[in-house]
Amino acid sequence: MEIIGVAGIPEVHPGDELGPMVLQAASAQGTPIEDGDVVVVTQKIVSKAEGQLVDLSTVEPSKKALRLAAESGRNPRIVELVLRESRTIVRKDLERGILITETIHGFVCANAGIDTSNVPGHETVSLLPKDSDRSAAAIRRHLCDAIPVTDLAVVVSDTFGRAWRNGHVNFAIGVAGMEPIKDYRGTVDAHGETLHVTRIAIADEIAAASELVMAKADGIPVAIVRGVTFTGGDGGVAGLLRDRSTDLFR
Amino acid sequence: MEIIGVAGIPEVHPGDELGPMVLQAASAQGTPIEDGDVVVVTQKIVSKAEGQLVDLSTVEPSKKALRLAAESGRNPRIVELVLRESRTIVRKDLERGILITETIHGFVCANAGIDTSNVPGHETVSLLPKDSDRSAAAIRRHLCDAIPVTDLAVVVSDTFGRAWRNGHVNFAIGVAGMEPIKDYRGTVDAHGETLHVTRIAIADEIAAASELVMAKADGIPVAIVRGVTFTGGDGGVAGLLRDRSTDLFR
Repeated sequence: MEIIGVAGIPEVHPGDELGPMVLQAASAQGTPIEDGDVVVVTQKIVSKAEGQLVDLSTVEPSKKALRLAAESGRNPRIVELVLRESRTIVRKDLERGILITETIHGFVCANAGIDTSNVPGHETVSLLPKDSDRSAAAIRRHLCDAIPVTDLAVVVSDTFGRAWRNGHVNFAIGVAGMEPIKDYRGTVDAHGETLHVTRIAIADEIAAASELVMAKADGIPVAIVRGVTFTGGDGGVAGLLRDRSTDLFR
Repeated sequence: MEIIGVAGIPEVHPGDELGPMVLQAASAQGTPIEDGDVVVVTQKIVSKAEGQLVDLSTVEPSKKALRLAAESGRNPRIVELVLRESRTIVRKDLERGILITETIHGFVCANAGIDTSNVPGHETVSLLPKDSDRSAAAIRRHLCDAIPVTDLAVVVSDTFGRAWRNGHVNFAIGVAGMEPIKDYRGTVDAHGETLHVTRIAIADEIAAASELVMAKADGIPVAIVRGVTFTGGDGGVAGLLRDRSTDLFR
């Protein structure tokens, strides 16, 4: 299995089509995209292309945002955006200025995935894409038509923290063309025992793997994961999101 | 970056030395281990080599284990082992027979990492290695001396579930020869902004990536991750374990 970082993608602007940019950059560096590849694209360039950028000076904080901001020492306009982008607050640690929320998309993460880095302008922040499955599908459609291939998957990734462990890793927030979970139910191990760990979140593992070639500051927002076995599917990221009723940590 | 699954490792028995077995199997399949590689070894073969296997018939359940087992429909001997291997119960869902604990090693996972699959004998289970950092260091020492190389890291991995998301992924439970966290603090992005997500858990990303070539039932318990940039270090896995005082989910 190979993971190839794709450099040379120019600064992305609202309205840009990522499919052609990814295709072109991969070919230009001598690693054209092939059938069977999983192409991982970071949230940041997807959000930029889709215009999910907010000028903070245009944001009017609500009373709730003003109160949370005062209690936590955070920027009230950012807190307002976090609240707008969230269904519920899962945990708050006002002393450390941390808000863990469930976003309107169903992800549990800090600050609703709102990011102030790698965005032009001190006062501009990026929101998560409105529907990262749709974003992934649009990129996939372009790649499949242009190359042309059929067995290709696209994952949109973002960098989240975790419960219990330090450090962030990349997770899948949008998926097109693959089942995000590999199901071993019914599989028997080398000793004839049925496997206990039966469902592996391969789309998250692919996202995590791709981060290793995406040095944060170095302008590598896309990776090609080649040689991984996946099953086609069009259910998107939903399969990765644990239902609230079975979640012991919400 | 490349990830190479290492097949051909024979069934591991208590007392076996994994270093020579890994070295031999990697060479035999034509992908000898090189300087700069991260070698990922699954918990299962480490536990077997270290004799961390328990015959369930020898386990006497305590009253607490009997009670939890009765309430949850689990095997009381397994519940007893989970309690012995844990510092605290973090969450329990007796209806679904789930115990999430903090293990004596500091990992938060289901069933204290006790595994009944891929172990010979219906009544034998494997516990986590007593000290996976030490296990990783012993394998690393052998590889570094035998090849010989100096810039080589070893990660012991295990497959855990996550809060909020479905499916399991591989995490690092033992680390030797590398800093498990890559620290971007102070790094400036392409627009001159300081990066917000500043600490990436690369040892976990490496473990997750390696799972993609370790098909569960197919006898690939080792992977070579080649071409990833890491910093040498001997702090082990501790850097990945979030302190209880800053953990909002314990």
